[in-house]
Amino acid sequence: MKLENDLLLRTARGEKVERPPVWLMRQAGRILPQYRALRGSLSGFKELVETPPLAAEVTIQPVDELGVDAAIIFSDILVIPEAMGLTYEMVEKKGPWFPKTIESLADVKNLGSGENVIGELQYVFDALAITKKELNGRVPLIGFAGAPWTIFSYMLEGSGSKTFSKARKFLYQEPEAAKLLLEKITDTTIAYLKQKIKSGADIVQVFDSWAGILPPHQYSEFAIPYLRKICEAITEVPVIVFAKGAWFALPELGALDCQVLGVDWNMKVGDLRGKHNIQQVLQGNLDPCMLYASPQVVRSETLQMIAHFGGRHICNLGHGVYPDTPLENVKVFVNTVKGSSYS
Amino acid sequence: MKLENDLLLRTARGEKVERPPVWLMRQAGRILPQYRALRGSLSGFKELVETPPLAAEVTIQPVDELGVDAAIIFSDILVIPEAMGLTYEMVEKKGPWFPKTIESLADVKNLGSGENVIGELQYVFDALAITKKELNGRVPLIGFAGAPWTIFSYMLEGSGSKTFSKARKFLYQEPEAAKLLLEKITDTTIAYLKQKIKSGADIVQVFDSWAGILPPHQYSEFAIPYLRKICEAITEVPVIVFAKGAWFALPELGALDCQVLGVDWNMKVGDLRGKHNIQQVLQGNLDPCMLYASPQVVRSETLQMIAHFGGRHICNLGHGVYPDTPLENVKVFVNTVKGSSYS
Repeated sequence: MKLENDLLLRTARGEKVERPPVWLMRQAGRILPQYRALRGSLSGFKELVETPPLAAEVTIQPVDELGVDAAIIFSDILVIPEAMGLTYEMVEKKGPWFPKTIESLADVKNLGSGENVIGELQYVFDALAITKKELNGRVPLIGFAGAPWTIFSYMLEGSGSKTFSKARKFLYQEPEAAKLLLEKITDTTIAYLKQKIKSGADIVQVFDSWAGILPPHQYSEFAIPYLRKICEAITEVPVIVFAKGAWFALPELGALDCQVLGVDWNMKVGDLRGKHNIQQVLQGNLDPCMLYASPQVVRSETLQMIAHFGGRHICNLGHGVYPDTPLENVKVFVNTVKGSSYS
Repeated sequence: MKLENDLLLRTARGEKVERPPVWLMRQAGRILPQYRALRGSLSGFKELVETPPLAAEVTIQPVDELGVDAAIIFSDILVIPEAMGLTYEMVEKKGPWFPKTIESLADVKNLGSGENVIGELQYVFDALAITKKELNGRVPLIGFAGAPWTIFSYMLEGSGSKTFSKARKFLYQEPEAAKLLLEKITDTTIAYLKQKIKSGADIVQVFDSWAGILPPHQYSEFAIPYLRKICEAITEVPVIVFAKGAWFALPELGALDCQVLGVDWNMKVGDLRGKHNIQQVLQGNLDPCMLYASPQVVRSETLQMIAHFGGRHICNLGHGVYPDTPLENVKVFVNTVKGSSYS
């Protein structure tokens, strides 16, 4: 089906466009009253993730309410460890928690991986198919996965962490087991993303949320090679890589075979294009807290960001939108981008 | 009293030295069995902070047990908000918690500040005086404070946070109230550090633990000017500034009137001296998780770090030592530095 609005895809492919496309990380979520109402009627987060018609419904909500240029499938990066054999729970107000974590090479060997296990995630593929049908070509649909290092972190740590010292200890103490696990996650992620694309994803994003916690030499050894493998395997659609906090790895990220690089709000576009000579299309990077300012400030800062990037740019925040962000300001952000022009 | 070992001070003043000095952030703490034994006999963390002979005892423990080249007074950065009128509690396994936080300009105006309030912190000054006497000139004594932005974050947020979005929201919504609060914290911090120096501190460190969460333009506006004011006010002893994660502010940090810049494990010394042309003595930056590796690896990585820095360097980790670090490896780290030589 031909898309009515393919601005995101044209931009990701590096074509000259009339204005930047806009969407927000976590746009399908607590900023929307429709989401909160639906979520409040359910037993928990996982029920929403695992019930395709409901996941499709919240995926489409921001397209209706905000008029963004893309939908991103409502799901969680932790479905991958679950498919591999480590189930997670989502604890209200605390975040994810794994009853069992990886502690040894034997644990790694016991995990499933690759195409064999992604059948477990049929509910994700069904959600994509329903969403695709219901979107009816209005905007592209984004699929996503966690980067291998970030998924690894959760599988070792068992939850979020300030230091991720358990996951990082494993890199120093069991580097070979760590690499085997990263390989298994990578293979599973590739199979998963390919099936997402078959189910309707027009573009995919890989989130390396915990990139910034590694020293440069470890990011080069335990993160970049697996990102590279994913980027090289996904040839069907454009790939966005968002490695939050990995400013020190910009030369390696810039060399990845991905079409778009997501950047956080610490990074200055002048440095990215200049000092670091990044060639990919860039996505980001308004400070998510900027949306707490007045609508006038949101508007002027958004226009300033568009001017600074000056093209080859997908407008987004530098992180997921925070749940208590005023909806009015989210709309000002989106509408300011939609009213802008490169002419 | 003349110091037997003044290597840290000579290095901080930029003198040519025989080897780098070594100490660890959080060396007085849970890595030491002596500390855990004493802490276990007390009602809580604050009892230890507020009882000068006990604070002195744990300050000296790592000098005895590890042979480090400096003692750092056992205390907490949150004594400053407490002196200004916001008491904190230290919740076991959760961290600091403020029953009352700053929500408005009126709240800011109600806070005390400067020399008037530091009398509340006599227990800190007493702890320094006792420590100084008991150290008997063995090694220098480090005093410390939180940087204004980091202290501000806790006063707004009321606890640690993944996003510090409450504190950051205040910068966008109430910039003038924010600046008044930062001024008050700065004035109090200067009075506090000066009194610490009078009580025996030979050098002081300012910790900007949450530096990395601000966008560059806000770090320039809401953090750097207050750090600058502190650095210019403290002329009695050398000043170390450690702004964790503030790689984007390196030109401004490099221009501060401080003798030493602390750096985290994301930063490469070649870039610091080369690309960023940092002139200050540098402190850091072994990855704290490196101390989970084998003693052989700890030794070789420590020697490699010393060689990379090549002088004008204080050996430390790039963050506080993690509580579950093997004591043996901490000793290997310290002893490797002490056995090294620039010759």
